[in-house]
Amino acid sequence: MRVYNFAAGPAMMPVEVLEEAREQLTDWHASGMSVMEISHRGRAFMAVAEEAEIRVRELLAVPRNYKVLFLQGGATAQFAAVPLNLTRTESSADYLNTGSWSKKAIAEAKRLTHVHVAADEAASGYTSVPAAAALRLSPNAAYLHYTANETIGGVEFPYIPDSGTAPLVADMSSNILSQPVPVERFGIIYAGAQKNIGPAGLTLVLVRDDLLGRARAETPAVLNYEAMAAEGSMLNTPPTFAWYLAGLTFKWLQAQGGLPVIAARNEAKAQLLYRAIDASGFYRNPVVHAARSRMNVPFTLSKPELDERFLSEARAAGLTNLAGHRSVGGMRASLYNAMPLEGVQALVSFMQEFERRHG
Amino acid sequence: MRVYNFAAGPAMMPVEVLEEAREQLTDWHASGMSVMEISHRGRAFMAVAEEAEIRVRELLAVPRNYKVLFLQGGATAQFAAVPLNLTRTESSADYLNTGSWSKKAIAEAKRLTHVHVAADEAASGYTSVPAAAALRLSPNAAYLHYTANETIGGVEFPYIPDSGTAPLVADMSSNILSQPVPVERFGIIYAGAQKNIGPAGLTLVLVRDDLLGRARAETPAVLNYEAMAAEGSMLNTPPTFAWYLAGLTFKWLQAQGGLPVIAARNEAKAQLLYRAIDASGFYRNPVVHAARSRMNVPFTLSKPELDERFLSEARAAGLTNLAGHRSVGGMRASLYNAMPLEGVQALVSFMQEFERRHG
Repeated sequence: MRVYNFAAGPAMMPVEVLEEAREQLTDWHASGMSVMEISHRGRAFMAVAEEAEIRVRELLAVPRNYKVLFLQGGATAQFAAVPLNLTRTESSADYLNTGSWSKKAIAEAKRLTHVHVAADEAASGYTSVPAAAALRLSPNAAYLHYTANETIGGVEFPYIPDSGTAPLVADMSSNILSQPVPVERFGIIYAGAQKNIGPAGLTLVLVRDDLLGRARAETPAVLNYEAMAAEGSMLNTPPTFAWYLAGLTFKWLQAQGGLPVIAARNEAKAQLLYRAIDASGFYRNPVVHAARSRMNVPFTLSKPELDERFLSEARAAGLTNLAGHRSVGGMRASLYNAMPLEGVQALVSFMQEFERRHG
Repeated sequence: MRVYNFAAGPAMMPVEVLEEAREQLTDWHASGMSVMEISHRGRAFMAVAEEAEIRVRELLAVPRNYKVLFLQGGATAQFAAVPLNLTRTESSADYLNTGSWSKKAIAEAKRLTHVHVAADEAASGYTSVPAAAALRLSPNAAYLHYTANETIGGVEFPYIPDSGTAPLVADMSSNILSQPVPVERFGIIYAGAQKNIGPAGLTLVLVRDDLLGRARAETPAVLNYEAMAAEGSMLNTPPTFAWYLAGLTFKWLQAQGGLPVIAARNEAKAQLLYRAIDASGFYRNPVVHAARSRMNVPFTLSKPELDERFLSEARAAGLTNLAGHRSVGGMRASLYNAMPLEGVQALVSFMQEFERRHG
C-alpha cells in the first residue's frame, strides 16, 4: 500500500509515473529491452529525450532563445558550473543569502570568483527573505544568484529579485514546476530533479543563449553549458532512465492541466497546513508569512520530547518522512507536486488528533 | 519478449536485476514508497548504499586503503576529475593513446595540465595496444592514464601497464567487473556504470587513500575525491536509483559465482564470436589477436551494401543494436556480463546463415 511520503528529496513521485515505468521496465514499447538498456543516441531514446524537452518547454513557456539542458551532478555541480561559465577569477558575483542552500552556493562560488553578498538574512535567523528594495547589488557583478526556495529553512521568495543589467541566476531545485515562472526574467534557472522532476541524478538547466560561450578554458566539459548545448546534453552519456522519468512527469503535469492548475493545488495544500499550524498552540512554524515556502513546511512541537512519538505514530498512520533536516531537527512536511491534497488533509487530521491526545 | 541486446552502452542488464526492480518499483520492501522516493540519508537507503559498496569490494577484492566512490558524470567527468585531483597546471601526466576514448581523455586533460603521450597506436590504425616495453614514460609524470578497453575500436589491454613510481589510472568503463583485477596495482580505477554496472548516470571510482587531498582549490566539489570520500559519496544527492540497481547487479554477479566465473564466461563468449568471424571469409575484425576486446567486437561485412539488411534481419531474429559506432560504421557486438552465451550462439548462427544466403 502506498503511503503519503513527505520526504524533502529524493521525494514522492506521481504514482501514475511509477506505474507506467514499472509496466515497461523490462520490455519498453514492446522492444524487448528496458528504456535504460538502449543507446542514448539511437532513434528510440532520442525521441524520448526530445519529447521531454518539448514538454518542459511547453510547461514553463521557455522562450526560444533559451537552451534546455539535462545534466548530472545536481545543484551542487551547478554551484561550480555557474561561476565557471560566467566569471573569471577576477570577476565578482552577487549572491543573496537566505539559508543553508544559499550558503553552499556561496561557499562553492568563493573558491572560483569574488562573491559579494547582496543581502543576508542572518539577522532574521533565516526566517524571511530580503525586501525587494533592500538588495545591495554591486555595479559590475557577473550575475545575481539566489535560492528561490530554501528546502531546509522553508523560506521561498514571493517575488523575483531585480538583478538590474546582470543576469539573474536561480536555484529552483525545490520549487521548479510548482507554479508558472516568467523564464524570460532569468539568465539561468537550474534544478536538481529529485523534488519535482523525477529521481535523483538528473539536473535541469535553462540557460539564455547569450550566456553560452563564456566558460573558462579549464571548465570540465560536463559543466560547460555551450559544449553541452552543442551536443544536445549528450556530450557524455546522459542519465537516460532519469531523463525518461522526467518526461513521464512532464506528461503527467500537462495531464493535470499544467502549471496554473498545479500552482493552485500547491497553494491550497500549503495553506491548509499553515492554517492548521497557526491555529494550534502546539505546532509552530518560524517563517514570516510572506516568505513561507509552499513546498517545504518545517514545524516544531511545543513539547520536543514528543518528537519521536509524533514520527512513529505518523508512520503508523501512513505518513512518512516527516523528520526535519538533521541540521535543524523538528519536523518538515514537503508538499511537492506529487503530494495530493488528500495527503495534506490526512497529515492535518493526524496532527490535530496528536495534539488532542498529547498537547 | 526479451531480445539479445548487443548495445555498447547503455547496455543490456541482467533480467533478474530488472525483474527485482520492477517488482519493487512502487512499493519497495513494503515501505509504500519506491526506493527512488526516499532520502539518501535515511537508514533504509544508507543500508542499500553500504551493501552495494561491500559487494563491489568483495567482487574486486578492493584493498582497505582504497575508497569506493559512487559519483555522477560518467567517464567524461573523470577525464577532468583526474587531472584536477592529481596535478597542477604546471605538472605533466602520461597518457597512452589507443583510440577514441583515450583521445577524449587526453583532450580534456590538456585543458588542465601538460599531457605527454607515452605511446600512440595511430600507426596501427588503433587496432592494437602498445607493447609493454614500448611505453615512453616521462620522469615526473603525476600519473599514467590508459583506457583498459576501447569500446569503439574493440581494443583491450591484455596486460596492466607498468607506471613505475607514478600512480596508474585506468578508465575501465567498458570492462570493469568483467574479470578479476589486481586493484592494488592501480592508483585510480573509474568506470561509467552503463555497461557492466547498471544504468547510465552513475560512475564508480576506486581511489587509493594517498591520492586524496591533492585536489586543486578550484576543483568543483562534486569532482573532488577527498570531499566526496569524506561524505561517503553523499556530499550532494547521489543518483539513488542507479546506486540501488548497481547493488542488485553486484548481488547478481556474486550469485553467478563472482568474477572468476564471469571472466570464464566472457572469454568463452568472445572466443565463440571471434572464431566465427575468423573462420568466415565474409566477416572481418581488424584488431590484432592479442588486443581483441572481450567486451566489444567490431566487425565488417565484405559487402557493406548489405549492412542495412544485416541489421534489419538481425533485429527480426531478436538480435538488436548491432550497428557499429557512428564514427566507424560496420557492426559491433557488445558482450557485457549480462549477455548470456545463448545470445552469442544465436548471433553466430544468424551470421553464418546470413553469410550462406548473401556471402
